[in-house]
Amino acid sequence: MLAEIITIGDEILIGQIVDTNSAWMAKELNKIGLAVKQITSVSDDAAHIISALDAAQKRADVILITGGLGPTKDDITKLTLSKYFNMPLIQDKATLDHINSIFVRLNRPMIEANIKQADVPNGCKVIKNTNGTAPCMWFEQDGKIIVSMPGVPFEMMYLMQEEIIPRIKAAFKLPFIVHQTILTAGLGESFLAQEIIEIEDHLPTHIKLAYLPKLGQVRLRLSGVGNDEKLLKNEIAAVAEQIIAKIVNYVVVADDIALEKAILDKMKVRNLTLSTAESCTGGYISHLITQHAGSSAVFAGGAVVYSYDLKESVLGVKHETLTTFGAVSEQTVKEMAKGAILHFKTDYAIAVSGIAGPDGGMPDKPVGTVWIAIASKQRIVAKLFNFGSKRIQNIERSATAAFTLLLNLLKQDVD
Amino acid sequence: MLAEIITIGDEILIGQIVDTNSAWMAKELNKIGLAVKQITSVSDDAAHIISALDAAQKRADVILITGGLGPTKDDITKLTLSKYFNMPLIQDKATLDHINSIFVRLNRPMIEANIKQADVPNGCKVIKNTNGTAPCMWFEQDGKIIVSMPGVPFEMMYLMQEEIIPRIKAAFKLPFIVHQTILTAGLGESFLAQEIIEIEDHLPTHIKLAYLPKLGQVRLRLSGVGNDEKLLKNEIAAVAEQIIAKIVNYVVVADDIALEKAILDKMKVRNLTLSTAESCTGGYISHLITQHAGSSAVFAGGAVVYSYDLKESVLGVKHETLTTFGAVSEQTVKEMAKGAILHFKTDYAIAVSGIAGPDGGMPDKPVGTVWIAIASKQRIVAKLFNFGSKRIQNIERSATAAFTLLLNLLKQDVD
Repeated sequence: MLAEIITIGDEILIGQIVDTNSAWMAKELNKIGLAVKQITSVSDDAAHIISALDAAQKRADVILITGGLGPTKDDITKLTLSKYFNMPLIQDKATLDHINSIFVRLNRPMIEANIKQADVPNGCKVIKNTNGTAPCMWFEQDGKIIVSMPGVPFEMMYLMQEEIIPRIKAAFKLPFIVHQTILTAGLGESFLAQEIIEIEDHLPTHIKLAYLPKLGQVRLRLSGVGNDEKLLKNEIAAVAEQIIAKIVNYVVVADDIALEKAILDKMKVRNLTLSTAESCTGGYISHLITQHAGSSAVFAGGAVVYSYDLKESVLGVKHETLTTFGAVSEQTVKEMAKGAILHFKTDYAIAVSGIAGPDGGMPDKPVGTVWIAIASKQRIVAKLFNFGSKRIQNIERSATAAFTLLLNLLKQDVD
Repeated sequence: MLAEIITIGDEILIGQIVDTNSAWMAKELNKIGLAVKQITSVSDDAAHIISALDAAQKRADVILITGGLGPTKDDITKLTLSKYFNMPLIQDKATLDHINSIFVRLNRPMIEANIKQADVPNGCKVIKNTNGTAPCMWFEQDGKIIVSMPGVPFEMMYLMQEEIIPRIKAAFKLPFIVHQTILTAGLGESFLAQEIIEIEDHLPTHIKLAYLPKLGQVRLRLSGVGNDEKLLKNEIAAVAEQIIAKIVNYVVVADDIALEKAILDKMKVRNLTLSTAESCTGGYISHLITQHAGSSAVFAGGAVVYSYDLKESVLGVKHETLTTFGAVSEQTVKEMAKGAILHFKTDYAIAVSGIAGPDGGMPDKPVGTVWIAIASKQRIVAKLFNFGSKRIQNIERSATAAFTLLLNLLKQDVD
């Protein structure tokens, strides 16, 4: 049983956008035991779409198509599918009502192009796109399933999770695939591999181990295939337990969640609160925290302080500390962390001050120099990092390093 | 004249990595007037690679392949190309010397697998991969060019820029491709299309218009093909001018940059400063701003204030305003904006307070209710939004709405 993904849109082929949909969809399909044979990106051109669809059907049983469903003239996926399946377009009442309700909510008039979005090939199964106006369309032909979804990532993701994946699971008898992820921080993948080499060398053939490194974190993913779900889960859990025992100091959580979410969970259980004082990370740490539902139980708030002035007025950093040691220094970052604890009345605080670049580097403090401090009411630690020359990476690596330091301090405070 | 891209690797098809190479390569090819017809991602499987290559040669004149050139057993691209072109593998002396020099530099012994990397199909043109051990291979057959490059992004990028692009330009007489993007905000794509329907209907056949919507922003992209670059640029510019004249109120900038970057540029020219006071967006707005190099010239800093306490102590929101009207109210968000102007000493401030969800909704203020205020020293505007039930989307939409409101106020302040 195989799947294929076809992404439609000139914007992909001229390199204006990176096709992130395919990787996300491939991951979701793999989770349910459906391997992806090929990913094909084609232009908004009827003949090209049809030839890609024909070719995909020769290789795969499920074909997921994204893109080309907008209300404008360049989008021709629906019209092409209508011709391909020989199903003339007809208006779908439920879709029209849904589109209408969106326009009513936005208090905007519907125009011809919006009404036309309710037209669907007569004979396809129409699936409501809760997050947008373009309907999702499900076709079946000669035992094959072809689904057309909008290319807007959050519309596609919601449809996949809520509608398409459950329907595919219902349509085919797929083997069980069980994944178990162990999130680690603080040790590189080759060193982790060395620690668990004995376990890895003796894995049964139906269980695989993958290392997924990302900026100072490594996820170890165990994946097993089998027909007995319960047995498979027990086998995977036993291997995970062995691995965790070997690398316990680097394990954040035995779950596939974000590092900061694991921290929020740990702090919530212990009724601890957190604040942030960010300079070079510019709100990114605070954003990572607050993207998680329920973060307000732990996170009180934070400050983004670029200027000397704000470091003094908002966080109470001493003027002479800034002028003597500079904004990017152990002294300043520690005062920022202490200031956050004091002014934001929290149990813990993260403070970051560095030179994200590309400008602002100095001979003794080149771009990528970052000081991070973590304070609790009792103690404070600070560490110097040198990340490199890329701004976005410096911001992301600073955030991971800050969370890893916070995690360590939290662990020590429990012991 | 068309090109195709084939990316090889199981890691793409299981969704472990996002294929960012293709978009980058497509952009580079478009710059030299070579349109990409299709992008195909296939597994590390000889039959699959060959069928993709056969299909690509029926559509395109230049085929660029990345991936599958590593020293490990799963990488079979080179062996497959050797069979495909009927060119047995022979050792390439220059490549072996290059690989050897890398191992000498790293002070590591070469093993059999490393030496084998110097084997190449007898008859291809070998191009030195300065940044890695896998050689780049250039094949010509029936007037078509097929190039195999490593999948490691920086190795591929260097090879493309220094070797492949110059050689392709020398091999073909290519037309010019000119793109011009107009970034708009505040009007949906179907309404924009209606405004410019006359222009779109009368576009010359060599110029195309595409609508690229994303959360309250729409990019209009004009793309033209021709042999006279100057003439083409003038034609595209003339069409862009007509379009802009029709939708001038919604045009942010006639460039393919981020909304907040366009705002930063406009504010920098006018020596204006900005601060933020964020509740439900949790630092996301501040992060979007500070990800851009040079943002510190405009952005002084901001506060993320989740609790009543911090709204009062950091921003000076009155206690009675919070208790009378609540945190998510016009009164509170206006005081937050004024507080940011005052405390962070900036010319403009963005303030956002809302219920991102999934919890915290109330009958009169459901999840998705967001108040946004923009203040300058002279005036203040506030607007109520109802975005919906999804946390991440509420955060992203709030940010776009805030930037759009700020842009409008900046425009009014100029007039």
